Amino acid sequence: MRILVTNDDGIYSEGIRLLAAELARLGEVVVVAPDREQSATGHSLTLSRPLRMQRLEEGWYAVDGTPTDCVNLAILSLLRDTPPDLIVSGINFGLNVGDDVTYSGTVSATFEGAILGVPSIAFSQEVSEGFSFARAARLAARLVQEVIAEPIPRDTLLNVNFPAGEPRGVVFSRLGKRVYRQSVIEKVDPRGRKYYWIAGTPEWQEDPGTDHGAVQNGCISVTPLHLDLTDYRGLETWGGFAGRIDGILGSDPARAR
Amino acid sequence: MRILVTNDDGIYSEGIRLLAAELARLGEVVVVAPDREQSATGHSLTLSRPLRMQRLEEGWYAVDGTPTDCVNLAILSLLRDTPPDLIVSGINFGLNVGDDVTYSGTVSATFEGAILGVPSIAFSQEVSEGFSFARAARLAARLVQEVIAEPIPRDTLLNVNFPAGEPRGVVFSRLGKRVYRQSVIEKVDPRGRKYYWIAGTPEWQEDPGTDHGAVQNGCISVTPLHLDLTDYRGLETWGGFAGRIDGILGSDPARAR
Repeated sequence: MRILVTNDDGIYSEGIRLLAAELARLGEVVVVAPDREQSATGHSLTLSRPLRMQRLEEGWYAVDGTPTDCVNLAILSLLRDTPPDLIVSGINFGLNVGDDVTYSGTVSATFEGAILGVPSIAFSQEVSEGFSFARAARLAARLVQEVIAEPIPRDTLLNVNFPAGEPRGVVFSRLGKRVYRQSVIEKVDPRGRKYYWIAGTPEWQEDPGTDHGAVQNGCISVTPLHLDLTDYRGLETWGGFAGRIDGILGSDPARAR
Repeated sequence: MRILVTNDDGIYSEGIRLLAAELARLGEVVVVAPDREQSATGHSLTLSRPLRMQRLEEGWYAVDGTPTDCVNLAILSLLRDTPPDLIVSGINFGLNVGDDVTYSGTVSATFEGAILGVPSIAFSQEVSEGFSFARAARLAARLVQEVIAEPIPRDTLLNVNFPAGEPRGVVFSRLGKRVYRQSVIEKVDPRGRKYYWIAGTPEWQEDPGTDHGAVQNGCISVTPLHLDLTDYRGLETWGGFAGRIDGILGSDPARAR
């Protein structure tokens, strides 16, 4: 069992260090992670410049890129001849629930795993009174142990969030829905020019069955994800629209059918 | 009718210039776009540094951030009192289909629109023999005109791709599936240190009904998207797993229920 570990808080973060140590009990662990914090980088790929991968110690590699870059360099270069059985990303400092998963570098690393055909799990820790990366790492390793007890489907993509306190249980949940809008704070620099900070305190729809609700309720949330963003219901709705839209071509004088 | 226009190729690109000009026939256009290319930045948000927004000319604003940043600054600051009815992103230089939509800054701008409650449409242009941004911009405006002819639902999120040649029709499609793996190219710099490029030529599953298939067939592909990545089938499958996973807590000595 070989496990690739990455994150978006950077290779020197406490979350990844404790996670890697616990996972090392289950198999060979290789860490390939950003050399600095890459939070909110989403599913971004570095294409316009080359990347460096520096070996820090046996099995630990720092990359000057995003978590998605790390997964690519690991799977397609470093571990090309010895592919991992599983990618584990985290433990993120702060929750990654609901609408926020697409901003998250931690979760996006698992998207890349799925695209490259490697089962992947993301772990994130709520940060407030009583939180403990040590406890989260221990529980993460136990969860991974259960998952790998059976053959793991290639399309496995799990997003796991730990509550701050001692967890009351495990809940399989769907993604929640944010209701707050981000806010933008406008300030003026010493030279009189405006600058802007993106900010905002998340507020969530209270809705049973969601990841955010599970964590609020003191439970570990486990949400299976997939990458087919097609809105199939929308496809039916918009279907009736097709004929009309097709008309936009008919009246194009340059058109040759 | 007020339309916010953004992209990921940067505010000086041909695609956004021609698109904004065509959309100006339909209503008031405000362009808020990155000051340089931001391709493959995915749904990334700049949180660790402040952003600048520079007015280039009437209705044109350049931001030193990602497309997602641009949408936030536009909706939550610049246009806070005069919100747009629609966000249009593009026209991207190159297709954004299938698995690749989550890397795309162009499409991610529409994700941000959806999260902020503004209907959004992304346009991308296949770049090969016979492509024309002028034709794509004209057709994009016609498509937008059809969409806004009726009240637009807040959750409208359309991903549109134009084929390189004269389009043969409009196809409502689902996201296709890539089969190629990215590749990583390893090189050595003049000082003997390795560096890496992420590369790769996409190959696609031949599957009727997909966006990539539609464009291959010379048609305009229109794909409705949504942001609920929950794998509901997976939720059923993993449901049976819940009891076993819950056991990981039961045997945790630190646990207090």
